[in-house]
Amino acid sequence: MNLILFAAHELDGHQQLSLSDERYQHIRHVHRSQPGDTVRLGMINGLMATGTIINIDEHSVQLCVLNTEPPPPKLPLRIILALPRPKMIRRIFRSIAELGVSELIIINSYKVEKSFWQSPAISEANVQGYLLDGLQQAKDTVLPKVSFYKRFKPFVEDELPKLCADTKKLIAHPDTGEACPLAINCPTTLAIGPEGGFTPYEVDKFLAAGFSGIHLGPRILKVENAVTVLTAKLFN
Amino acid sequence: MNLILFAAHELDGHQQLSLSDERYQHIRHVHRSQPGDTVRLGMINGLMATGTIINIDEHSVQLCVLNTEPPPPKLPLRIILALPRPKMIRRIFRSIAELGVSELIIINSYKVEKSFWQSPAISEANVQGYLLDGLQQAKDTVLPKVSFYKRFKPFVEDELPKLCADTKKLIAHPDTGEACPLAINCPTTLAIGPEGGFTPYEVDKFLAAGFSGIHLGPRILKVENAVTVLTAKLFN
Repeated sequence: MNLILFAAHELDGHQQLSLSDERYQHIRHVHRSQPGDTVRLGMINGLMATGTIINIDEHSVQLCVLNTEPPPPKLPLRIILALPRPKMIRRIFRSIAELGVSELIIINSYKVEKSFWQSPAISEANVQGYLLDGLQQAKDTVLPKVSFYKRFKPFVEDELPKLCADTKKLIAHPDTGEACPLAINCPTTLAIGPEGGFTPYEVDKFLAAGFSGIHLGPRILKVENAVTVLTAKLFN
Repeated sequence: MNLILFAAHELDGHQQLSLSDERYQHIRHVHRSQPGDTVRLGMINGLMATGTIINIDEHSVQLCVLNTEPPPPKLPLRIILALPRPKMIRRIFRSIAELGVSELIIINSYKVEKSFWQSPAISEANVQGYLLDGLQQAKDTVLPKVSFYKRFKPFVEDELPKLCADTKKLIAHPDTGEACPLAINCPTTLAIGPEGGFTPYEVDKFLAAGFSGIHLGPRILKVENAVTVLTAKLFN
């Protein structure tokens, strides 16, 4: 945790914050902080701040929240991703928040096993936890917007055109289109398939919606590495 | 597995290969291949090839190895990395091979816990296994060279100057030097610290050895994401 996040309602009327959960444990046992020490704080979907420890004991810590400043800017990037294998979800969602991606849309695809949609990893509480982990690593406060579409065809035909209007539209797929461009730094919607890739039908649906193919060369990357590599190349 | 790797000694005098281990299981139960079907193969540190199934039964598969071609080129990148936490080693070593990094040098650093050096994750057999996983994902055959230096000061003072001669020398560290450059595509030695970063003394040692600082902006990334992001930005 490079930043400790709190919700707006946790702050009292005197700009003070009292913590007794795992955030307190982190301040006490990892930072080993004493009264007068400062801690980097951030209000979820709000500002970053400095927390000065007023008191810390066996049960809780009280902090005075001062010197607010804005969080780092988000990347103008919306990623459309086929639902990953449940054991990869934590890492991928965490990385999405860590890298500063603005929005994540999880969709179905032919190669997504139906059972993945039953995974507790995509419960609202778990998703929020993974995203907060990533924000606390990266020193950011703003949660990426996350949504789920369980049916591919209604998504690409009915939702996609509205969603990606006025953005650059890219689909990453092996041997498709051009090599991934560098530092385009403009509002972008980027579609990434599941392990094994989108089917030709699915790729065609994106191309019909105005997407351009991009590829990463001869190496086939795991989805979590593809997400990170594409984001790193497209934005600077 | 997008490519099934075998050792040179496994090939008989008639360009045939017989497999009965987990590679056979993969061909039988994941690919569900039949005689006449083809499988992508690669000889470790050798060529890629097409394997045509001659016979497959309850115990083994026999393949005829044909149509060799060279593997994808490696990146001219040597990464010097502080020994990661053991639970991260598999993923990081796997990604190093997957991304096409030529060489990995693992070093000590003040923030590396001594116990990490006792981890079975860095046994020769485990390291080779992680690297082969990455190669089989990326469709590559050539193992990155991996070495370990358990003492920081002798490494940076005695070994580093010889190792990195004639390469671009970069150290990634928050708030240091310039933003990570894009697509430098030249022989490069890149140093990356542990979680929590190199100490100021350690950074100074690299700078004294001719390294230039680069950073990734205000976001602090996990080591595994920093490795992937830096590699993606520096090479195209």
